[in-house]
Amino acid sequence: MKLKFAAKASSANPTKTVVTARNFQIIIDEPKDLGGTDDGANPVEYVLGALAGCLNVVGHVVAKEMNMPLNGLSIELEGDLDPAKFMGKSAKERAGYQEIRVKITPDTTADIETLGQWLAAIEERCPVSDNLQNPTPVKITLA
Amino acid sequence: MKLKFAAKASSANPTKTVVTARNFQIIIDEPKDLGGTDDGANPVEYVLGALAGCLNVVGHVVAKEMNMPLNGLSIELEGDLDPAKFMGKSAKERAGYQEIRVKITPDTTADIETLGQWLAAIEERCPVSDNLQNPTPVKITLA
Repeated sequence: MKLKFAAKASSANPTKTVVTARNFQIIIDEPKDLGGTDDGANPVEYVLGALAGCLNVVGHVVAKEMNMPLNGLSIELEGDLDPAKFMGKSAKERAGYQEIRVKITPDTTADIETLGQWLAAIEERCPVSDNLQNPTPVKITLA
Repeated sequence: MKLKFAAKASSANPTKTVVTARNFQIIIDEPKDLGGTDDGANPVEYVLGALAGCLNVVGHVVAKEMNMPLNGLSIELEGDLDPAKFMGKSAKERAGYQEIRVKITPDTTADIETLGQWLAAIEERCPVSDNLQNPTPVKITLA
């Protein structure tokens, strides 16, 4: 089975993008210190958000399979990137995040061995983690 | 120079995640047919949104550098994934998008050769496109 997901977007200005996915609207912008109008989180912050949302869903699916009690979780995420390539100043470093660090705090009574198995399964099965960690073809064409 | 971006998230329920990035809140959920409470776009739709936002910003940065007129753009994005791995039913296919297709419609008078150069530069320099197309280390730890 394959599921198709889709979104449409249009530029409200050079940094602000209005995205529609099903009946939801997503506002993306850049902060003022990156030249933006600061009307929303920026694209790479949304990448962290998408990863967090995915880890929550898969974390609960896997916990249920394992009969592991899970009353919720919190997640802290961060990543560093060098804006030089994106700004056209240098191409020495990659354009995107060089690394993404994620710290998960599960609300659970599970022991450490169970938690290790849980974490390994989540990382392996989370779609967003897969798309970041492994190459994903992005085919861009002009209309 | 390195810029750090960060986000915090907590589970409102097993499918709904509330993410905070700076002063912005992002609500992520799953549609009802994927077992969710449908309070927001889902994680993989946010991936498409993040890519769209990034292409808009970088598209305008590159157009300005090239002195290419650009009065805005619209973007359509789609991707397919097999939910079997994420749901724990099969591990034959990868967990995430197998391919992401993007169609950009720029509002411009530029000729086709200029547009080709513009598109190649965007794809190369967009941080989100880089993080999807090339391997990105994701280091997940338990608190």
